[in-house]
Amino acid sequence: MNRGLQLIALQDFPLVQPGDDLAALIRDSLRHNQLELIEGDVLVVAQKVVSKAENRYVDLGDIEPSERALTLAGQAGKDPRQVECILREAREVLRVRPGVIIVEHRNGYVMANAGIDKSNIEQNSESPRLLLLPEDADRSAEALRKALTDSPGCAPMVIVNDSVGRAWRNGTVGMAIGSAGLEPLYNQIGERDLFGNVLEVTEAAVADELAAAASLVQGQADEASPVVLARGARLRPGLGGARALLRDRAMDMFR
Amino acid sequence: MNRGLQLIALQDFPLVQPGDDLAALIRDSLRHNQLELIEGDVLVVAQKVVSKAENRYVDLGDIEPSERALTLAGQAGKDPRQVECILREAREVLRVRPGVIIVEHRNGYVMANAGIDKSNIEQNSESPRLLLLPEDADRSAEALRKALTDSPGCAPMVIVNDSVGRAWRNGTVGMAIGSAGLEPLYNQIGERDLFGNVLEVTEAAVADELAAAASLVQGQADEASPVVLARGARLRPGLGGARALLRDRAMDMFR
Repeated sequence: MNRGLQLIALQDFPLVQPGDDLAALIRDSLRHNQLELIEGDVLVVAQKVVSKAENRYVDLGDIEPSERALTLAGQAGKDPRQVECILREAREVLRVRPGVIIVEHRNGYVMANAGIDKSNIEQNSESPRLLLLPEDADRSAEALRKALTDSPGCAPMVIVNDSVGRAWRNGTVGMAIGSAGLEPLYNQIGERDLFGNVLEVTEAAVADELAAAASLVQGQADEASPVVLARGARLRPGLGGARALLRDRAMDMFR
Repeated sequence: MNRGLQLIALQDFPLVQPGDDLAALIRDSLRHNQLELIEGDVLVVAQKVVSKAENRYVDLGDIEPSERALTLAGQAGKDPRQVECILREAREVLRVRPGVIIVEHRNGYVMANAGIDKSNIEQNSESPRLLLLPEDADRSAEALRKALTDSPGCAPMVIVNDSVGRAWRNGTVGMAIGSAGLEPLYNQIGERDLFGNVLEVTEAAVADELAAAASLVQGQADEASPVVLARGARLRPGLGGARALLRDRAMDMFR
């Protein structure tokens, strides 16, 4: 039998509204897709639907930009109110360029515009809305995992992913901003390779790799598949969340 | 039917030796695994077996370190001969830290130690060997694609992947260092999202996402699965290689 990994995008997932019970929507959708969770399954959930369910919308009409937001907005050529939202979500501003402000998000991710976006959000003409990242995506993942645990059946592993840019590469890739029930890093310290040499590269960021894989089937323009079931990933069970993927500041060579 | 992506690691892939016909090994392995290529299939091939087939080994005994290599080796705490190899493969040294030298590889990838590694290489005790990246991984991918094209049947898309570190994240992820037959970036300029807004984030690095996905099933310590068949990725056919993923230097904010 082939050792394989399967990624299945849940079809016909409903549009998510603030206050929706996302776990219930996922459970219904699994049933609708005739899928049953088995041991080792990972559910990869797009950040956008988590943020929507958690009502992380901000109405730009309510935002009063600070002096700093006005200055940065001038440099970046962005709406000062949007920049104000970015600053409120950021721990540190790393770079400013036309169209983009790279920050460290208060949860530690380095990303453009603090992960705030306007696409796939219902806009009304009077006052545009933005959608922030979840308050704490590890906590969101853990809550989904708990709610989706059948008694006494298996608890799915959960990853919340977002599409992010990279320092030296064009294009975005799916990245794990939250996780629950799994080891996000596959640690091989002390393992030996096929020829008995101790392995030099010790850790694979398996949660990020799976987040990227899921992003391929979630699609971009078409938000109809925000939830992906990954089967056969063989991730190790673990506590703690995707926070373990954040490089320690003391080890950061590119700030 | 579910929209899905399947990643199948070819089992029992032989150890690759310099001069081996890698395309023939892959064809035999597909047959052994009872798999037949169909339209849209992508073969993801680990850099290591490409480099081995292309005999990119360097015998450290043959290397005379330069003055610069000796200096950097002192700073990085590395073998000066290995540092010499890194410098010969590099266009520019970006950062030096104990244990790691971040360079721009002559093919444009920003990576640690110019992608040179010692793991999963048969060593003999007298003189250690290193394995360099392929001379030109896009060309390697194109050659595999051509050789694996049945007449008049379908030509597989090909990605050569490697595991690399990131600036602000722990752990490595699979990345496309070469590709053939596909568009590495999924360009959405002008497309509209579900709600009619023009999409702001315009490009997904789909080749990197698939490279990361394949890395999950290739395994790390176990090099027995260097070739992965990806089915259902729905990448767009395209000319040109993975070079399109390299961020233009003028757009680089983190050098």
